Amino acid sequence: MTISNDATEPAAPTGDGGLVRLRIDLSYDGTDFSGWARQPGRRTVAEVVETALATVLQFDPPLLLTVAGRTDAGVHATGQVAHVDVPTLGGDDAIDVDRLARRVAGLLPADVALRAMMIAPAGFDARFAAIGRRYAYRVTDVEPNPLRRRDTLAWPRPLDVEAMNQAAKGLLGEHDFAAYCRPRAGATTIRTLHDLSAARDADEVIVISAVADAFCHNQVRSMVGALLTVGEGRRPSAWPADLLRAGVRDPAVNVAPSHGLTLVAVDYPPDGELAARVARTRQRRTLPDRSPSGAHPTPPHPVRAHNRRGSPS
Amino acid sequence: MTISNDATEPAAPTGDGGLVRLRIDLSYDGTDFSGWARQPGRRTVAEVVETALATVLQFDPPLLLTVAGRTDAGVHATGQVAHVDVPTLGGDDAIDVDRLARRVAGLLPADVALRAMMIAPAGFDARFAAIGRRYAYRVTDVEPNPLRRRDTLAWPRPLDVEAMNQAAKGLLGEHDFAAYCRPRAGATTIRTLHDLSAARDADEVIVISAVADAFCHNQVRSMVGALLTVGEGRRPSAWPADLLRAGVRDPAVNVAPSHGLTLVAVDYPPDGELAARVARTRQRRTLPDRSPSGAHPTPPHPVRAHNRRGSPS
Repeated sequence: MTISNDATEPAAPTGDGGLVRLRIDLSYDGTDFSGWARQPGRRTVAEVVETALATVLQFDPPLLLTVAGRTDAGVHATGQVAHVDVPTLGGDDAIDVDRLARRVAGLLPADVALRAMMIAPAGFDARFAAIGRRYAYRVTDVEPNPLRRRDTLAWPRPLDVEAMNQAAKGLLGEHDFAAYCRPRAGATTIRTLHDLSAARDADEVIVISAVADAFCHNQVRSMVGALLTVGEGRRPSAWPADLLRAGVRDPAVNVAPSHGLTLVAVDYPPDGELAARVARTRQRRTLPDRSPSGAHPTPPHPVRAHNRRGSPS
Repeated sequence: MTISNDATEPAAPTGDGGLVRLRIDLSYDGTDFSGWARQPGRRTVAEVVETALATVLQFDPPLLLTVAGRTDAGVHATGQVAHVDVPTLGGDDAIDVDRLARRVAGLLPADVALRAMMIAPAGFDARFAAIGRRYAYRVTDVEPNPLRRRDTLAWPRPLDVEAMNQAAKGLLGEHDFAAYCRPRAGATTIRTLHDLSAARDADEVIVISAVADAFCHNQVRSMVGALLTVGEGRRPSAWPADLLRAGVRDPAVNVAPSHGLTLVAVDYPPDGELAARVARTRQRRTLPDRSPSGAHPTPPHPVRAHNRRGSPS
């Protein structure tokens, strides 16, 4: 039996030799991982989770996970979502998901937690059905709390949150974010940014929230880098939007360090709309690249790239 | 010149060959420390901070810190307070505290942060002037967030927060907490517990707040252990108070693991009342041990022990 990592249709949950699609919710401390995606000789989140699944299911080679947000090295997640298609051996109770979840959870290292495992609703696809990715970037300009040093950037100068929010407003909406993306051949950089805003929490940590249909590579960290430059007064609030309009990467934009970034949630449509959403996303994937200059009114365009895999941060 | 770790009177902030008392606010990740207090061959918070101070001040042997809460191995702090008496070389500006603070902060390792350093108000003593210690214990009965695994206990069974709060009420007030303390020769175990309460935060983590004039050794973790036993339904809510009245350590009480515990704040009276507070605390120290059975109405009794040093957790 061939297990495809890219099956368009989730298998029915029962049946001889069929496949059942599992939705897997994960959280992890990205500090000691070389990111989500498998790389030879590197410790990655995908490899660790896939190995645990393979051990419990006695399946070799491992079943491959499809993920909503392909986080970079050092980036954390509290709300990552993936799916995997698992072969059934027949019968309605061929897969005891709760038992499988307990056993997989027991095999995971301390820096990865299995938050939930369930049989996915019909039409679910962790990557192509997603309509939104939510990230949070933590940065502090006061003396940092050592207990949060793994997921909070320490900034050595005072930051003006009002100026950062003013700047962030200029990036909202649908744009070509080429100025903020590490380019990938054949991949579009048009995204719809639903939220980009900063607020101090009870511990004086500045939490920058970033929500979009999807993000291109390095986009969140580049936008945060631009906001930090504004926040410390080195550039005016209009600067990040000026860069956006220029449409090319500017060496003045620093990519903020990965350890401040956490994928906090992935949004999906109601179950009844999952299949339509996946079909629409996949259809777009087969279209030629669209001009990045056009203003496409509605609906938001989640994943247009030919070779994008997941939603890198 | 002899630098005393136990000077009753802070030195005036100026003057040839005098001493200036500095208040030092610290936070630390206790994971990789063998607690606060110096121990030969162990990495401790006191040793790390004292070494940084000695390096900057070029003072050998190191000046010793007096601390409000002498945390155990693995216990964290976000609001620890200490003081140190530093020799001045004369003149009003003999000590540039801001510069000293920056240099010390720059020498501290990543798991300790200098939150503040200032010339202490007259009469200040980090240990003897303190009127309250505030601890927080974090425990989760849902899938733990790997990013918080260093300061949050993972509990494998559901916890009933209502039952825990009912139980906690039975421990409030002034009591002999011998049932919850690791005994120390000559040390009283009478304390006044101002708050002991549990609440789930936005991430479903149960945060148990414990506030007292001071805590005896292992007291917070023993009380938390009893509350967890109640929370999972193995004992009734009346059990922790029954233990308290029995007045002896009960092997059924588990001391909760240290890594869930954080010293979050130390309370002091207004500046004008510091000296009186220190005098009262010191006076009590010279009294013979009081009977643990007596009910002492007012005021709260902060530090009665002969050989207590700081406020162990």
